Amino acid sequence: MSDPVPRRRGRRPAGEDTRGAIVAAARTVFAAKGYEAATMRGIARAAGVDPRLVHHYFAGKEDVFVEAMQFPIRPAQVIGPAVEPGPEGLGERMVRVFFAAWDGPDQRERIVALLVSAATSPEGARMLREFVVREILGRVVERIPGPDPALRAELAAAQMIGVAFIRYVVGVEPVASASPDRLVELLAPTLQRYITGDVAAGAGPDPAANADS
Amino acid sequence: MSDPVPRRRGRRPAGEDTRGAIVAAARTVFAAKGYEAATMRGIARAAGVDPRLVHHYFAGKEDVFVEAMQFPIRPAQVIGPAVEPGPEGLGERMVRVFFAAWDGPDQRERIVALLVSAATSPEGARMLREFVVREILGRVVERIPGPDPALRAELAAAQMIGVAFIRYVVGVEPVASASPDRLVELLAPTLQRYITGDVAAGAGPDPAANADS
Repeated sequence: MSDPVPRRRGRRPAGEDTRGAIVAAARTVFAAKGYEAATMRGIARAAGVDPRLVHHYFAGKEDVFVEAMQFPIRPAQVIGPAVEPGPEGLGERMVRVFFAAWDGPDQRERIVALLVSAATSPEGARMLREFVVREILGRVVERIPGPDPALRAELAAAQMIGVAFIRYVVGVEPVASASPDRLVELLAPTLQRYITGDVAAGAGPDPAANADS
Repeated sequence: MSDPVPRRRGRRPAGEDTRGAIVAAARTVFAAKGYEAATMRGIARAAGVDPRLVHHYFAGKEDVFVEAMQFPIRPAQVIGPAVEPGPEGLGERMVRVFFAAWDGPDQRERIVALLVSAATSPEGARMLREFVVREILGRVVERIPGPDPALRAELAAAQMIGVAFIRYVVGVEPVASASPDRLVELLAPTLQRYITGDVAAGAGPDPAANADS
């Protein structure tokens, strides 16, 4: 019960071993098939358990992935509320979700594991790519007005991936020790500009995109 | 002579073995001491050669590092010309330097090697961090007006590191296949805003920072 991520429903019928076996099997399935093609049924088959048992432990494929990869957020739970109010102020809400997820102890190892897995194996790259595109960017892209929303959403994501690399992985000062609030102040307008700024025509920043104006 | 990066002066007195031994020794020295504390003399000692021989093959420590780490640019040669004309338009010039350096065949392996080395060992992180701060960011920071120039230079660098990760390492579409020109169009205003935009007060983008206006 110490891990806040997995959602449990009802009592445990088969103990931690079954749950652990499902998670281990899920890692193999995600690596072999990617995130898109993986199914709850396939994970159950790989774990040698009844599919109902997988559904007993996990609300869905996203939850299995989040636990198997130790991903720090459940996108369904945090991306939805962030995009719900609309494009206005979305840049700041996304930056805050990012720091709430990653700015804690013991997160460096998780980030390193994700980056290295994606960098060193095609399977690692594919499953992370498909998960991020489907569960995170997909939810944001549909709220971005104007042309090339996927391109702009990915450049916003790139900004935050780079911050993760500099702040948590390599530890470059002053970013490594800057307060989240100061970083939000600098980064939120960048993300907001990708979301609602006049960037599609390459005409430079649009002050009207700023929530303060 | 096929590698454009190392600068040679005069004839080779001791052949490729000596040169290779210097590069191999340099990797050990950079890993052990970091970039800042490493010296041409220390590299010579580790390679068991006269320091004059290291100076014969390499113009300086930066050149040894660039070759030892297969870094795609010599910062002294490309960062200088980019920052020389001043802050105006610097965002676009930096983005173009980035794509000129990385947007070629066989670059993915180099990027992966750099990222994984930095992510998986403190020594790898330190030498890359010290090299980038000293030879790249250091040259840019001194041209950035206003408060917190290092913080803003690093967030600009973070944007491009994230693009490298998405475009070259993980291959997320549409960024992976977008033309460099289109990406320059979208990214240059982001970097320019960190360099000259009204970001210090968190007041949002400053249209006056755009070179087109």
